[in-house]
Amino acid sequence: MQPLRFVVLLGSLRKASFHATLARSLPSLAPEGVSIEFLESVGDIPHYDADVQAEGFPESVVKMGKAIKQADAVIIVSPEYNYSVPGVLKNALDWISRLPDTPFAGKPVALQTGSPGLIGGARAQYHLRQILVFFDALVLNKPEIMVGQLPSKIDQVNDQISDAQTRDFIATQLVALSKMVSQRQA
Amino acid sequence: MQPLRFVVLLGSLRKASFHATLARSLPSLAPEGVSIEFLESVGDIPHYDADVQAEGFPESVVKMGKAIKQADAVIIVSPEYNYSVPGVLKNALDWISRLPDTPFAGKPVALQTGSPGLIGGARAQYHLRQILVFFDALVLNKPEIMVGQLPSKIDQVNDQISDAQTRDFIATQLVALSKMVSQRQA
Amino acid sequence: MQPLRFVVLLGSLRKASFHATLARSLPSLAPEGVSIEFLESVGDIPHYDADVQAEGFPESVVKMGKAIKQADAVIIVSPEYNYSVPGVLKNALDWISRLPDTPFAGKPVALQTGSPGLIGGARAQYHLRQILVFFDALVLNKPEIMVGQLPSKIDQVNDQISDAQTRDFIATQLVALSKMVSQRQA
Amino acid sequence: MQPLRFVVLLGSLRKASFHATLARSLPSLAPEGVSIEFLESVGDIPHYDADVQAEGFPESVVKMGKAIKQADAVIIVSPEYNYSVPGVLKNALDWISRLPDTPFAGKPVALQTGSPGLIGGARAQYHLRQILVFFDALVLNKPEIMVGQLPSKIDQVNDQISDAQTRDFIATQLVALSKMVSQRQA
Repeated sequence: MQPLRFVVLLGSLRKASFHATLARSLPSLAPEGVSIEFLESVGDIPHYDADVQAEGFPESVVKMGKAIKQADAVIIVSPEYNYSVPGVLKNALDWISRLPDTPFAGKPVALQTGSPGLIGGARAQYHLRQILVFFDALVLNKPEIMVGQLPSKIDQVNDQISDAQTRDFIATQLVALSKMVSQRQA
Repeated sequence: MQPLRFVVLLGSLRKASFHATLARSLPSLAPEGVSIEFLESVGDIPHYDADVQAEGFPESVVKMGKAIKQADAVIIVSPEYNYSVPGVLKNALDWISRLPDTPFAGKPVALQTGSPGLIGGARAQYHLRQILVFFDALVLNKPEIMVGQLPSKIDQVNDQISDAQTRDFIATQLVALSKMVSQRQA
Repeated sequence: MQPLRFVVLLGSLRKASFHATLARSLPSLAPEGVSIEFLESVGDIPHYDADVQAEGFPESVVKMGKAIKQADAVIIVSPEYNYSVPGVLKNALDWISRLPDTPFAGKPVALQTGSPGLIGGARAQYHLRQILVFFDALVLNKPEIMVGQLPSKIDQVNDQISDAQTRDFIATQLVALSKMVSQRQA
Repeated sequence: MQPLRFVVLLGSLRKASFHATLARSLPSLAPEGVSIEFLESVGDIPHYDADVQAEGFPESVVKMGKAIKQADAVIIVSPEYNYSVPGVLKNALDWISRLPDTPFAGKPVALQTGSPGLIGGARAQYHLRQILVFFDALVLNKPEIMVGQLPSKIDQVNDQISDAQTRDFIATQLVALSKMVSQRQA
């Protein structure tokens, strides 16, 4: 199998974000030959405004779009806010959707969400899936990573997911995503 | 009937936004005794970040929350972006949701969306409805205002919705919202 | 407070259904003055077919519609099938929606779902909420009853929910529904 | 390109169903080498009941499952009922989901809905997409076929879609589905 490059889009801005730790755990969970890189923060992307777009795409948007375009797959790691996608994440997607080269079109995507409660961000995932239909992205169906009680499964000192079952489950998704990419490139 | 105050939350930042014109048409469509006021722009609210919140809510968020709390009802007027709620609008809602006095709880809300195509923003409305369950808002069921081919129904010179049928339909919703508010306050 | 009558619409046909036990637990959890009655089985309602409707509504549909119309509120108790509403339940709703007197219009409704896993049927609930917008029903926002690991919280010998926390939580919803009904009738 | 076999799953039971006419128009719109076959009526499948399943799958379910398994792709043609999937269609899917050989897993699927109004069944499609995540089906993103004002686009005498633009649009989807299948089988 040839080497694959996955990029991670993170939906939270908080410094000590549990989802940021989840994202930073991914390199240690990826199968051999898969590298994990991190897109710049959605916090660096201004509010979407068609008037601003008319004067030219912000540099941060162009850069993020290019990185997505060049990647073999995208992993969206995000909390759920108010039963849906965080506004800051959706705002980044709103910008990316206007880029003329549609970086998400035909791109394999995996979703990973968590929550303090039991539902694990499921509601945000189905909203993301509906959004990604418009993007013509190829969203991996299974396994679905919705980590309930996420804070208790994180070791913040080592900045890693500590729960073994969660680690295994995420690793399984990364393998599934790798297979999806490889089959498409065959 | 005692006078009612409705406030409008606008989901678009573009200066010549069709939805802004729709919003500015509302005072001329409201039933007698209902005043329509406009919340400040969602563009003035920074990206939601729990670290920023920890240092205190931004002034713009506090002000918007207070205006919602004091209003008899909220009208959300918004385009649909990528089959969902605009990120900038969702970001404002994400901030508002953290305010300790939960300004949307028990608040009557009406939704108005439009689109250049025929679907009229329906997809954004059902995402908003799911979000507003978390807010414990009371979202008016009917009539649903989803204006297809919105640009053709706007007179930008007079800054008004020009399509008579659309005007009548929106006026009907404002009456329904007024009744909903009045019955609750009886 | 005057006596209230709630009716239960059950989405599962299995004899030993966990949700049937949940439904049959409701009388023991209802606040004083609230009686709980059970609508007939959705299994008695034939497949929706407009040609059949043209010859007259089936007796089972008419009867269910009348019972809903006369009730003070409806409680929908259902499993989630395939990330959505069971077909048999939706089929009953499809028939009810055609009745000329629209029995769900303006009717307070509460939702209760469960699942063997952790998510507790959340996905079915948001689909139900979207459906019930069309019905112009008044769906209680909170508390949301989504019982994860439902089978382990059931005592099938005594045909009751056995988990104390779940019982309390459901009782809280029944109180909230009672208040919603009483405020509307005031 | 080798010959492909698509099967059609129809969500309506009415004899003079507009969606049935849409379905019967598909053979004349399919690209060369693609045959269109029709699954048996969802009306022949009994209400899903786990007790019935325990005694063995109904013959109609086994037959439908086998036909789906053997097909190169499935086209779901359905009206929207009450802002969601018709109960009769969902009921058939509920049965199919229990078949041990999971006939929808990895299967390319296209969605076609219509409505008398302008929205064209969009709401049913996103519910179907959420359901089909559980099935691990591969649902074509684009083009989305949501035919507004469907009755006016049908010629019932000739039992064909008569609107040229709609015919072209559907033909485009069938080509896209064919490409999706061929790329997967390459």
